[in-house]
Amino acid sequence: MIAYLVRSAIVILLMAATAVSPQSGDKGPVFTNDGSLVLPSGFRSWVFIGGPITPNGLNGGGAPFPEFHSVYIERENLRYYQKNGKFPEGTVLVKELSLAQVGKHPDGSLDSASGRGYFPSTLNGLDVMVKDSKRYSKTNDWGFFTFGHHAEPYESAAKESSQCAYCHIANVAKTDMVWVQYYPLLKSKID
Amino acid sequence: MIAYLVRSAIVILLMAATAVSPQSGDKGPVFTNDGSLVLPSGFRSWVFIGGPITPNGLNGGGAPFPEFHSVYIERENLRYYQKNGKFPEGTVLVKELSLAQVGKHPDGSLDSASGRGYFPSTLNGLDVMVKDSKRYSKTNDWGFFTFGHHAEPYESAAKESSQCAYCHIANVAKTDMVWVQYYPLLKSKID
Repeated sequence: MIAYLVRSAIVILLMAATAVSPQSGDKGPVFTNDGSLVLPSGFRSWVFIGGPITPNGLNGGGAPFPEFHSVYIERENLRYYQKNGKFPEGTVLVKELSLAQVGKHPDGSLDSASGRGYFPSTLNGLDVMVKDSKRYSKTNDWGFFTFGHHAEPYESAAKESSQCAYCHIANVAKTDMVWVQYYPLLKSKID
Repeated sequence: MIAYLVRSAIVILLMAATAVSPQSGDKGPVFTNDGSLVLPSGFRSWVFIGGPITPNGLNGGGAPFPEFHSVYIERENLRYYQKNGKFPEGTVLVKELSLAQVGKHPDGSLDSASGRGYFPSTLNGLDVMVKDSKRYSKTNDWGFFTFGHHAEPYESAAKESSQCAYCHIANVAKTDMVWVQYYPLLKSKID
């Protein structure tokens, strides 16, 4: 009877331990049998590291990504980067796009109480890069995936896309394929 | 002896349960005895809900906050907002500021591979608002705090500041004192 109670207490407490972690089950990339990447889950609870914007109004109406680019990384991968200056195997970086509010200025900017600028409106797409030196040795150890350039819902899985890789290789091959200078949180303490 | 083992197992498992939650100890505002707010900890593991920018180059060189404004909220408070259309008592909203890279264009924007735009450089300040209808009934139930408009480290505690409240009351009193239209994640599913 006591052994039963001990086992029960341990099972209950283990269940509780699992329940309190919002990130459980979200670690690392998940692939389908044909090598497609499954849409990462839980990334909005990862660490946001920065969000540049290249609006259409500053790019002749044709920016490739006119939205805010919000980039997320898992905590332990960020810590590894901060310690080692590179991302560990299995790192997943998520870039979620948010359209900007439409302002009346020629550059598309909007007047608001805090001044004239760019303000997010709605989510509009999701791209992912995964570090795996075996799968993606031809593209500097990273694979690139597009889950749609549109509002939610995004695609549930995506095949590797070489289009993104070219630009990353041409510009940021020396900094582990990431524009690290645009992400201040890569350098800041995460508690 | 068995009772001792049971207690030990429970204590060890409870410690494990606490350790796996990155947010433990970060819930709700913490005040000093004189009513100052203690600098929130762990907010970079909260949910990022949006990051507008009002650059100096678009504001005659004098934007009150020329940086990206990255806004964070705890998960359960976001869920409450999504269900009820208002923030619960005890909600803490953190706004962390990031300077933009200095570009060569008159509006301060920078040319990069993804186009011309604004890109974060370094962290530059932190402001907080806390919902507490008893403490801050005079300012529509929210208190406002500035932990410094400069690089880290920020101040460890801050007194209430009425300056921010005026602008929030004048502009967004009807939407629980927040420019909710600029934060797309307030409307999106958080898994």
